[in-house]
Amino acid sequence: MALKAAVIMGSDSDWPVVKKTVAQLKAFGIETETHVMSAHRTPQEACAFSENAEKNGFGVIIAAAGMAAHLGGVLAAHTTLPVIGLPLKSAQLDGLDALLSTVMMPPGVPVATVGVDAAVNAGVLAAQILALTDPSVKAALAARKQEMAASVREKDARISLEASEI
Amino acid sequence: MALKAAVIMGSDSDWPVVKKTVAQLKAFGIETETHVMSAHRTPQEACAFSENAEKNGFGVIIAAAGMAAHLGGVLAAHTTLPVIGLPLKSAQLDGLDALLSTVMMPPGVPVATVGVDAAVNAGVLAAQILALTDPSVKAALAARKQEMAASVREKDARISLEASEI
Amino acid sequence: MALKAAVIMGSDSDWPVVKKTVAQLKAFGIETETHVMSAHRTPQEACAFSENAEKNGFGVIIAAAGMAAHLGGVLAAHTTLPVIGLPLKSAQLDGLDALLSTVMMPPGVPVATVGVDAAVNAGVLAAQILALTDPSVKAALAARKQEMAASVREKDARISLEASEI
Amino acid sequence: MALKAAVIMGSDSDWPVVKKTVAQLKAFGIETETHVMSAHRTPQEACAFSENAEKNGFGVIIAAAGMAAHLGGVLAAHTTLPVIGLPLKSAQLDGLDALLSTVMMPPGVPVATVGVDAAVNAGVLAAQILALTDPSVKAALAARKQEMAASVREKDARISLEASEI
Amino acid sequence: MALKAAVIMGSDSDWPVVKKTVAQLKAFGIETETHVMSAHRTPQEACAFSENAEKNGFGVIIAAAGMAAHLGGVLAAHTTLPVIGLPLKSAQLDGLDALLSTVMMPPGVPVATVGVDAAVNAGVLAAQILALTDPSVKAALAARKQEMAASVREKDARISLEASEI
Amino acid sequence: MALKAAVIMGSDSDWPVVKKTVAQLKAFGIETETHVMSAHRTPQEACAFSENAEKNGFGVIIAAAGMAAHLGGVLAAHTTLPVIGLPLKSAQLDGLDALLSTVMMPPGVPVATVGVDAAVNAGVLAAQILALTDPSVKAALAARKQEMAASVREKDARISLEASEI
Amino acid sequence: MALKAAVIMGSDSDWPVVKKTVAQLKAFGIETETHVMSAHRTPQEACAFSENAEKNGFGVIIAAAGMAAHLGGVLAAHTTLPVIGLPLKSAQLDGLDALLSTVMMPPGVPVATVGVDAAVNAGVLAAQILALTDPSVKAALAARKQEMAASVREKDARISLEASEI
Amino acid sequence: MALKAAVIMGSDSDWPVVKKTVAQLKAFGIETETHVMSAHRTPQEACAFSENAEKNGFGVIIAAAGMAAHLGGVLAAHTTLPVIGLPLKSAQLDGLDALLSTVMMPPGVPVATVGVDAAVNAGVLAAQILALTDPSVKAALAARKQEMAASVREKDARISLEASEI
Repeated sequence: MALKAAVIMGSDSDWPVVKKTVAQLKAFGIETETHVMSAHRTPQEACAFSENAEKNGFGVIIAAAGMAAHLGGVLAAHTTLPVIGLPLKSAQLDGLDALLSTVMMPPGVPVATVGVDAAVNAGVLAAQILALTDPSVKAALAARKQEMAASVREKDARISLEASEI
Repeated sequence: MALKAAVIMGSDSDWPVVKKTVAQLKAFGIETETHVMSAHRTPQEACAFSENAEKNGFGVIIAAAGMAAHLGGVLAAHTTLPVIGLPLKSAQLDGLDALLSTVMMPPGVPVATVGVDAAVNAGVLAAQILALTDPSVKAALAARKQEMAASVREKDARISLEASEI
Repeated sequence: MALKAAVIMGSDSDWPVVKKTVAQLKAFGIETETHVMSAHRTPQEACAFSENAEKNGFGVIIAAAGMAAHLGGVLAAHTTLPVIGLPLKSAQLDGLDALLSTVMMPPGVPVATVGVDAAVNAGVLAAQILALTDPSVKAALAARKQEMAASVREKDARISLEASEI
Repeated sequence: MALKAAVIMGSDSDWPVVKKTVAQLKAFGIETETHVMSAHRTPQEACAFSENAEKNGFGVIIAAAGMAAHLGGVLAAHTTLPVIGLPLKSAQLDGLDALLSTVMMPPGVPVATVGVDAAVNAGVLAAQILALTDPSVKAALAARKQEMAASVREKDARISLEASEI
Repeated sequence: MALKAAVIMGSDSDWPVVKKTVAQLKAFGIETETHVMSAHRTPQEACAFSENAEKNGFGVIIAAAGMAAHLGGVLAAHTTLPVIGLPLKSAQLDGLDALLSTVMMPPGVPVATVGVDAAVNAGVLAAQILALTDPSVKAALAARKQEMAASVREKDARISLEASEI
Repeated sequence: MALKAAVIMGSDSDWPVVKKTVAQLKAFGIETETHVMSAHRTPQEACAFSENAEKNGFGVIIAAAGMAAHLGGVLAAHTTLPVIGLPLKSAQLDGLDALLSTVMMPPGVPVATVGVDAAVNAGVLAAQILALTDPSVKAALAARKQEMAASVREKDARISLEASEI
Repeated sequence: MALKAAVIMGSDSDWPVVKKTVAQLKAFGIETETHVMSAHRTPQEACAFSENAEKNGFGVIIAAAGMAAHLGGVLAAHTTLPVIGLPLKSAQLDGLDALLSTVMMPPGVPVATVGVDAAVNAGVLAAQILALTDPSVKAALAARKQEMAASVREKDARISLEASEI
Repeated sequence: MALKAAVIMGSDSDWPVVKKTVAQLKAFGIETETHVMSAHRTPQEACAFSENAEKNGFGVIIAAAGMAAHLGGVLAAHTTLPVIGLPLKSAQLDGLDALLSTVMMPPGVPVATVGVDAAVNAGVLAAQILALTDPSVKAALAARKQEMAASVREKDARISLEASEI
């Protein structure tokens, strides 16, 4: 049975951004479970989820959080599954706090960090990891890469024409 | 019985800096317990310590950590005692990572942050908090404030003379 | 008699943010006195308040200020009570100036700094400190921690369902 | 046959740091191929390596580079394998340049970024990814997690004793 | 025949800013070709364009990109023509990511970087370079410098009067 | 005859901010001359103004500029009058570029820098300097200091009351 | 009688840098008084010094401090004399903390800030201010400007020759 | 006759870094003139050099400076030749001050900025610009690109072998 992806966010206010991660995962046909769990407000739930993630059929965990974004690290502490960190921009400090809090992990407990607010890339990275065990996801990734290139080419044609008329 | 202080550091490599916190606490006559506990490598120990800190007679917890310094936040998640965060400078990024990871906590779970590598101040702040319940610490703080002022005055006399001879 | 909290802000323009600190303190049943006092425009008032805070029944002082936020340090210079610094974001530099100006204090005179604009956390930290001497505040903090967790669990249920329908 | 790991560095001057990544991978029993390939000086080699990595039996690529660290992004452009970015500190700007250049990738082409100079974590993250397809790596990761915890506990015992004697 | 300028942007969303570069080039009478080509989504097109730019009659290439802005570096890897990098501000990190990703190139492969969002200056710099081989562009640059000065003088007269009436 | 103040801005787009500097100077009764002069677009005018400022009766020059704010330094190069630098925030990088470009001058050629967009303070600092030679400005400064304090005290009364009713 | 300069530093550890300020002032023939006074450890002395500075014959005050450098602001709060802030680099954060803490003052209370560790420039700026009332200082400044230029010209001759032989 | 390159540095202390720029230019066979000229200490010389550069046979000017690095901008103000800015790291702020002061130029007056301390790249960029008019420089650039690639390939062979033996 295919491995699942878990998407955990630290606060329900993160949902408008994180929704794009879930949508991306589903577009790749990856079974996904989504939760609001806080490293600081429901730490037991977060730890328990992470400890049991592997035996519950997950292959990767995505942790989305802002400010002193500890969620990725806390989840990574309780599992050997790859944990993807999605740092979110908050009203202050432009996301640099979340980025540094997510990425600068101590030796032995990495968090695979994507860019600030890079919700789509969190999904794509999860798919790239799960694709090692799932040929249908691999195929979907290859198809998406083609589509991206085609879309850029189409935009090139349009802009290149528009520019020539300036 | 007087409340105790706990000093928790994320790695034994932090000890040369954190030693100054312990020495400061002991100079104020505060009973202190010191541990190496990692938010990411021994999370159960860290959480258990924090959950039991109050009933074990602690009045304040100091958490010292570098890089993505989650230790303060993880300890604060499991107690309502005040948690002091001491961000430590590591080889990269000059301590800004540890500072932001420690201070930018979500609403409801504060970490009382002191400056980067400010080991003495972590001890003084703990003493200021415990002094609310312990007149001998209060007296020690008042004495230290006098001594600091006296020391600055003495230095003023010396430098002011030295400068006049340039 | 229970110890009081003082909330000092550097400018009346800080009031919309600082109001949340006062509301949080009052929700915990903490008697609170609020002032506008400027480290630079009414320094005598600020210093006098701090010098007399302890004998006037205060157990903790919260200092809220933006830009070169000297207020916390100036108040801390005149008391051995714990001083909480609340750095405020202004129109330039995203609050980093206020954060560094508040937290990087010299040895012997700490300011317990919370996150940029973290008005609620300033109140919670003050409550955690005062709770060492006041069981009713301790109980209120424990209750709040339960409510936070319950609220996150409720949001988890809602978002988790919503996500499953994408 | 087990999937291999590729370790690509942008310059031979990166080798003293990157050596720790290779050693970590080999400690997990992961077959590893190491190269110096530059996004800017040998772009053809880098692109060709990435394009052929999957069919050559690789499951993950680690890209280590400093300054305007384009290597991770350039490799990720030519494969759907997960690419891990290891930003390296150079003589200027403290590694922030490499971190931002590695992590802030456009939608569709993620680079799984670890901390600045986090050579060990690049290896551990690669192992966590490959472990999805390789039970022996999974077992090695679990064992390492136990050893890390044991090591921290041992240090706790030592430091805790040393601190009690201050 | 006069050398042409190429303007390459990483995404069509950059066009509203980059349009000013194209307009500036055309105002100088420089033949310009504009494309959307992505270092990460259509790397082959980007590399091929750069490899053939010189023999196709280009004298300078302008690369506009945001976030981990690799486009300038990738183009510079495949040509010895001067490549101008125009870092673009995105929704996070205020353009610092794009600036560092563009400017901090390794020895041997420079990118001539202009300011964040400095679309006009990218065009002026290209003109200054092409003017070495094209007297009509040289004359246009000299005329523009005069006009700039005249415009500042006119503004001086107006503001200076307005200020005198405050 | 009283020394005059010169206010030079790099672009007419700075005028809405700089207007506050001029208004402040006039409120102190200081004769003020205002110009738009650019270090880069009308360098001759800027240099000539600065070279002749002293003999034209000026006692201080204020230079307001954004981005790579060279204006203060360029004016300071041609005079021994004190030059006040007012760094202005532009659309990118939050004013940090202008602040560093203004303040980090080489030995021998200082620029007296005020905060980002601190237009009022540029005027007050100029008045403090001119007051050394002009008792009426000295008196106006003292009066302003009193008014500032009175205004803060009035706000304290208002907010303190409002807070007590929360 | 000529106005004097006051040089106040926050700690005697600042003396090796601040010594250059004093030496520069004396080289200009300015009578100088030097003190160690701390905004946080001897605030009364600092405030009293500032309040009495004008009537004690000072025309300018230089405040040198590191980290959360409040000294300049605290002195400026108690006088209408111009206060020059000299931010000092400490072991962490590269001086950015001291720079922002010094320069970002609220409206009405400016601190004339020079660069990080710019001890010579603090002295030159003080001289430029005092020169408005003291022709001998004005002459010394003009002479120094000539010497600086001569020294650069001499270095130009030497380096230009050395470069021609590469 | 081939166009010459000018290398101007702001201080003779920059020479150890800037020497690499001159050596690189001479390796390409480009006639080079080197000067120490300061935007702030010998502004007349700097401006005069720039104004006359074109008629004196120069095709490009390289400006190397640290801190508030105004040199590039000041030279660019007086010529329509391309000006390359080489920001230099000084003892404070890690070169970020020089980078921003060099690159963030106002519209109409670009400075083609290379990385912090990127002395070799300043020379290579100058060569790429002059190569538009000089086939021998073009050939030298192409040869250097080949050599760089060969050197990387050689290092790849060596490190790849060394890594296989870990």
